[in-house]
Amino acid sequence: MAALARSVLVTGSNRGIGLELVRQLAASPRPPQHIFATCRDPGGPRGKALQELAAQHPNTVNLPSIRGAVRAVGSHLKDQGLNLLINNAGISSHATLLSLDSQEMLSVFATNAIGPLQEFLPLLEKAAKGSGQEGLSCSRAAIINVSTKLGSIGLCLGVHQAPMYPYRASKAAQNMVTRCLAVELQDKGILCTAIHPGWVKTDMGTEKVLGYLRTPSAPLTVEHSVRGILTVLASLSQDTSGAFLDWEGNSLPW
Amino acid sequence: MAALARSVLVTGSNRGIGLELVRQLAASPRPPQHIFATCRDPGGPRGKALQELAAQHPNTVNLPSIRGAVRAVGSHLKDQGLNLLINNAGISSHATLLSLDSQEMLSVFATNAIGPLQEFLPLLEKAAKGSGQEGLSCSRAAIINVSTKLGSIGLCLGVHQAPMYPYRASKAAQNMVTRCLAVELQDKGILCTAIHPGWVKTDMGTEKVLGYLRTPSAPLTVEHSVRGILTVLASLSQDTSGAFLDWEGNSLPW
Ligand SMILES: NC(=O)c1ccc[n+]([C@@H]2O[C@H](COP(=O)([O-])OP(=O)(O)OC[C@H]3O[C@@H](n4cnc5c(N)ncnc54)[C@H](OP(=O)(O)O)[C@@H]3O)[C@@H](O)[C@H]2O)c1
Ligand SMILES: NC(=O)c1ccc[n+]([C@@H]2O[C@H](COP(=O)([O-])OP(=O)(O)OC[C@H]3O[C@@H](n4cnc5c(N)ncnc54)[C@H](OP(=O)(O)O)[C@@H]3O)[C@@H](O)[C@H]2O)c1
Repeated sequence: MAALARSVLVTGSNRGIGLELVRQLAASPRPPQHIFATCRDPGGPRGKALQELAAQHPNTVNLPSIRGAVRAVGSHLKDQGLNLLINNAGISSHATLLSLDSQEMLSVFATNAIGPLQEFLPLLEKAAKGSGQEGLSCSRAAIINVSTKLGSIGLCLGVHQAPMYPYRASKAAQNMVTRCLAVELQDKGILCTAIHPGWVKTDMGTEKVLGYLRTPSAPLTVEHSVRGILTVLASLSQDTSGAFLDWEGNSLPW
Repeated sequence: MAALARSVLVTGSNRGIGLELVRQLAASPRPPQHIFATCRDPGGPRGKALQELAAQHPNTVNLPSIRGAVRAVGSHLKDQGLNLLINNAGISSHATLLSLDSQEMLSVFATNAIGPLQEFLPLLEKAAKGSGQEGLSCSRAAIINVSTKLGSIGLCLGVHQAPMYPYRASKAAQNMVTRCLAVELQDKGILCTAIHPGWVKTDMGTEKVLGYLRTPSAPLTVEHSVRGILTVLASLSQDTSGAFLDWEGNSLPW
């Protein structure tokens, strides 16, 4: 099997799904040449697991801090451009309708709906142009936005048990951005897809909601979810650019 | 025909669709007892048309500024509560992917996705409780969020001609809030529905996009759109709480 992509950047990679994405990519039989594992503070105590991983794969795994990552990645990749950007960093918020305050809403929006995407566009365009490939794929140039089923307006699941207004609204906004990007970037050879990782046993997936631990608890291990996500990413094409898929490749309603 | 509701509050009512909503409500054969026409600066020069309208209907149309409106409305209505809140104030943004900056994105979110809704909940609950009515309707207690077809993730219309990322994303976020509110407030007797007014000849509907005036230009007059909206509002019930409808009552995809 060919490598998923020559170069991959993952945001929020110091723990949870992001860390496991970097781990499985680095350990795969045909790993990417360059894995950029970004987070807020790669050198700090919260970056420990990532530092160990980078030490095991010194030629592949790079740890730029998210500030200044574009420059670091650009100079590392030289003329090649970046093939695959996985926007994974995200924050949940358990605000209910009444506890919701607009400051919290806005900070959740900033993280979940906007992210660092825009700055990386030139590197993705470079990869798309220089790839020698036709059509859309993660190996050519792609943006993957890690979304959530709770961001599906159509499903609107479990509002009473987990109101989470800012989280849901920010992910619906992110889904809109995914769809618009898919339309806008198609002619430039860049794919864009939203992926729901499932309900996963990470810090976020096991957080207390409304003061008590959610029951039933998150059913998926991080390994399982990420194995699914990587299989789905390898299968993406023109047909699934602009789609909203779960870790098993099932389509979700907006 | 009965009045649409005993009391109605409209945000962004100094011009465009908001002003026409107040005008048609006040001029209807059975007008609401109380119309609260709010805007940012009702006493200023931008509030002129509204001041004239209030002068024509001195017993019906009140002009509280949006700051402090809850208190003013509450003390005016005494024990009755507010029946119908129309969140109409909104701002567009023509940012493209590349011109987008997160400060702009956040200020558009604050206006379009969040709004003043939360503060009015107690007044709506009071109306729902005291109404003596069963089921859901605008005459009992309702929140109407003025949305837009451009906020439909499923349709994702005209991205090349009008990228408008912040506007689209903020309205998708607002649609999510509408759906969640409909679920959460149903048991309290409060209806919540998203309405697309059509493409209307207001300041917003005739703004230049990407430097040139959009062609074809907005087909709907404000009068026509608002007549449609008010007819749709009168028809809303349990079945259409949580729906996304246009000014003719057609359902739109999320
Ligand atoms: N777990 C689930 O059940 C589940 C379900 C659906 C979707 N998701 C989505 O999956 C993605 C990863 O979630 P996870 O479960 O792995 O969560 P997690 O274990 O809580 O990890 C979140 C990651 O995002 C980073 N992050 C949070 N806020 C940030 C900010 N403001 N700026 C930059 N980075 C920030 C964190 O960095 P720090 O360590 O510096 O805080 C961490 O690396 C998220 O987008 C989440 O919405 C998760
Ligand atoms: N026109 C269309 O074709 C169209 C299509 C789809 C949806 N819509 C929606 O319909 C609604 C009304 O639009 P319109 O066409 O009547 O627009 P408009 O003529 O531009 O009027 C906008 C109104 O919103 C108020 N507003 C704007 N930003 C605000 C803020 N930050 N805080 C408080 N008030 C603010 C304005 O007050 P100031 O005078 O103080 O600025 C004004 O009263 C909006 O929600 C819009 O998204 C319009």
